[in-house]
Amino acid sequence: MRIFVYPGSFDPVTNGHIDIIKRAAAICDKLIVAVLVNHSKKSLFSLDERVSMLEKSLSCCENVAIAHFSGLLVDFARSNGAKVIVKGLRAVSDYEYELQMAHLNKKMDENIETLFMMANPNYSYLSSSIVKELVLLGGEIDGLVPNEIKSVIIEKIKNERE
Amino acid sequence: MRIFVYPGSFDPVTNGHIDIIKRAAAICDKLIVAVLVNHSKKSLFSLDERVSMLEKSLSCCENVAIAHFSGLLVDFARSNGAKVIVKGLRAVSDYEYELQMAHLNKKMDENIETLFMMANPNYSYLSSSIVKELVLLGGEIDGLVPNEIKSVIIEKIKNERE
Amino acid sequence: MRIFVYPGSFDPVTNGHIDIIKRAAAICDKLIVAVLVNHSKKSLFSLDERVSMLEKSLSCCENVAIAHFSGLLVDFARSNGAKVIVKGLRAVSDYEYELQMAHLNKKMDENIETLFMMANPNYSYLSSSIVKELVLLGGEIDGLVPNEIKSVIIEKIKNERE
Amino acid sequence: MRIFVYPGSFDPVTNGHIDIIKRAAAICDKLIVAVLVNHSKKSLFSLDERVSMLEKSLSCCENVAIAHFSGLLVDFARSNGAKVIVKGLRAVSDYEYELQMAHLNKKMDENIETLFMMANPNYSYLSSSIVKELVLLGGEIDGLVPNEIKSVIIEKIKNERE
Amino acid sequence: MRIFVYPGSFDPVTNGHIDIIKRAAAICDKLIVAVLVNHSKKSLFSLDERVSMLEKSLSCCENVAIAHFSGLLVDFARSNGAKVIVKGLRAVSDYEYELQMAHLNKKMDENIETLFMMANPNYSYLSSSIVKELVLLGGEIDGLVPNEIKSVIIEKIKNERE
Amino acid sequence: MRIFVYPGSFDPVTNGHIDIIKRAAAICDKLIVAVLVNHSKKSLFSLDERVSMLEKSLSCCENVAIAHFSGLLVDFARSNGAKVIVKGLRAVSDYEYELQMAHLNKKMDENIETLFMMANPNYSYLSSSIVKELVLLGGEIDGLVPNEIKSVIIEKIKNERE
Repeated sequence: MRIFVYPGSFDPVTNGHIDIIKRAAAICDKLIVAVLVNHSKKSLFSLDERVSMLEKSLSCCENVAIAHFSGLLVDFARSNGAKVIVKGLRAVSDYEYELQMAHLNKKMDENIETLFMMANPNYSYLSSSIVKELVLLGGEIDGLVPNEIKSVIIEKIKNERE
Repeated sequence: MRIFVYPGSFDPVTNGHIDIIKRAAAICDKLIVAVLVNHSKKSLFSLDERVSMLEKSLSCCENVAIAHFSGLLVDFARSNGAKVIVKGLRAVSDYEYELQMAHLNKKMDENIETLFMMANPNYSYLSSSIVKELVLLGGEIDGLVPNEIKSVIIEKIKNERE
Repeated sequence: MRIFVYPGSFDPVTNGHIDIIKRAAAICDKLIVAVLVNHSKKSLFSLDERVSMLEKSLSCCENVAIAHFSGLLVDFARSNGAKVIVKGLRAVSDYEYELQMAHLNKKMDENIETLFMMANPNYSYLSSSIVKELVLLGGEIDGLVPNEIKSVIIEKIKNERE
Repeated sequence: MRIFVYPGSFDPVTNGHIDIIKRAAAICDKLIVAVLVNHSKKSLFSLDERVSMLEKSLSCCENVAIAHFSGLLVDFARSNGAKVIVKGLRAVSDYEYELQMAHLNKKMDENIETLFMMANPNYSYLSSSIVKELVLLGGEIDGLVPNEIKSVIIEKIKNERE
Repeated sequence: MRIFVYPGSFDPVTNGHIDIIKRAAAICDKLIVAVLVNHSKKSLFSLDERVSMLEKSLSCCENVAIAHFSGLLVDFARSNGAKVIVKGLRAVSDYEYELQMAHLNKKMDENIETLFMMANPNYSYLSSSIVKELVLLGGEIDGLVPNEIKSVIIEKIKNERE
Repeated sequence: MRIFVYPGSFDPVTNGHIDIIKRAAAICDKLIVAVLVNHSKKSLFSLDERVSMLEKSLSCCENVAIAHFSGLLVDFARSNGAKVIVKGLRAVSDYEYELQMAHLNKKMDENIETLFMMANPNYSYLSSSIVKELVLLGGEIDGLVPNEIKSVIIEKIKNERE
């Protein structure tokens, strides 16, 4: 069985992530979306909220599982039987950082490969930070995040601001 | 009337900004320099100080107005009758970020265009942060900021440090 | 009157060019599409064919004129009363070359500005060369070039090959 | 069955290619190395020679097949039951060109994905052109190409020069 | 006497730094490794610890001296009789930042040159931050830092976490 | 004695080259400007003309020698007692190509280092090709090439065209 891991903070998940998830799921047997528990970088949404938003957004995808991890990504991949890490790429700055991570992970475990998928050009400007900033400034996020979680995101950010 | 908007933090304005402002003003009927009021990122100079430094530096430019905004840039542009946002570009990393912003603004309002002007090569190393760091380290900022505001900047940074 | 010049080989014009032309025409009083007559680089289509394809594709745009030039672009711009050169940008490699050209043109005539517009993300992969290669390989170019000139392009390339 | 296609000119195959081929073969069921027959760009080695060098270099890889194609890559992939195109990435300039190709192929057939693998840093300077130039200048190519084909390459280039 | 300065935070020194130091020392008469005392950016290791780790790692290099500086780098270089600043380059993002610094330093003192050396490809993913993050996540840092200081680094980071 | 080699085609030498040559000569004991004899890429000026233009432009630089080479650059450096190759860098695309060459040369002879110097921002748009194209189009090259060789360049290009 070909298992791929797609790691990220998903704070919150965007339609850019969803696009990569669906395309990656179509070329493997099982895709594990792995939510990063990062103790040093504070996220807006709690781990539970981030997992819950992914579940709502991906209910239709049969071969997609949602999990979380702390520690080394290669350890998580290996213990889940995955030999492939999938990453989406938008711009060149993405690319350089991701290449650095890929080389590092290769050094940590040379049996695990990182595969890059290009982002859909329509989402090339899209990131979790952009979504949060837009809501803060009163902008519209229709089409940028899954419909199922739009109101959750807006409410959370409004509550935070108060 | 062709109105352009040139947004920024101007914390403080540098000769790199002044160069773009004068060149942009020469190709439109009115240029609005729009100072960003960013509640999440602390600036060294207050909004009043930043506006005041711009006014001192741009007194000779007849078709340049100075304003400030919070919220979405496209909303500010639209409500001021501007169809063009002008941005200066220095390096490739600038370019990628600015491209992302331009795409985002296009999505927010497709009638507003972002136009990029290349920075003067002589100012390719120049930014507001560089100016502040130089003063902190005791370096010389002659030629990097308008003469009219040089002493204001140096005094402010010295006071902050104490 | 604000006159912009949009230079290029247009060998042939693509929908990426058309997108930039329409957006640029919306923010100036007159846009001159300037076809480059390049004696050192052979084009597939003759100057007349390239101008004719532009005319067919841009019949609806009232403030767009089509012209051609050899020699220095800044000389052409100046003699047509234009103070602005417009260029579309796709990727980073575009950017570097175009920046170099913009600096050079600035040195040739410092009163003429180059303004960059970002390409529509949907056309980020699109160029005249790509169109020609696709037709050669039997690929589909629907949506990549204006409908009015699709058959002209395909016929020309088929004739060339024989 | 998960089938990947790895396209290229392989004029000649280098150790950089071999590294990508082995790593890609390890994460799919069958990898087709697809030699491009490009009528417009002359290769040093004939199609037969290029295929033969690949066969000698890859005799040990059980799930790797060698084929050739002209026409659109997506057509070749589809007719071979492959849903994935694999490409190696070295530098940023690679990346931009490959991204453009990936977007184009996505437009040609949206069911076929392009996956990028980073080149081994030790081969980041390596390309078929570099190998040919080195031999021409009398440089050493040990470690840059498979041992099995080293003498074939050197002899061919010496004969060409005479 | 040709004196070069190699500045950095060295928080902690990595094998990537050591590689540049040894290669730079081989082409000048004296190399001064200059540890930056940066009051605005907190380092994990104290100045004394950073200097001590460098001393342990570089005991064998005869023409390498270790020093520290605050203030402008060009002032430090000049007062130490050095006309050259050496910097290592990994990726493109490095390059742009370093170019900006080099231009700035050139403006501060036009007699001092910045020379760039490319990082060893095997260390292209390596940085002080990566080392710290790896230890935090329980990863292995063998081969990434000098053996002499490996245990010091691990102990420090474990103590910090508690 | 610290000997540096500065290789290039110098077809023709520009003020960008001269700037690098003077700055490099100031930090070594002897700088050898090495004109590449490239049999596969045709130059506009003959080897003798290129050497002669360099001699006219560099008559004042005492520690600069002019030579030519074919074959591997590292062989030329080694046989001239040089341990350092100097290259000027303008844009990111330069950088990537030069990095590739530097890695390759390192593999050919690991005792020879490549050092990069940033181009003067005022010459960031300047290259030998730009000079030739400008003259062809009737543009002005004052300030782009040494005064001593300006008329030689213009005459040559005019003769070629006829």
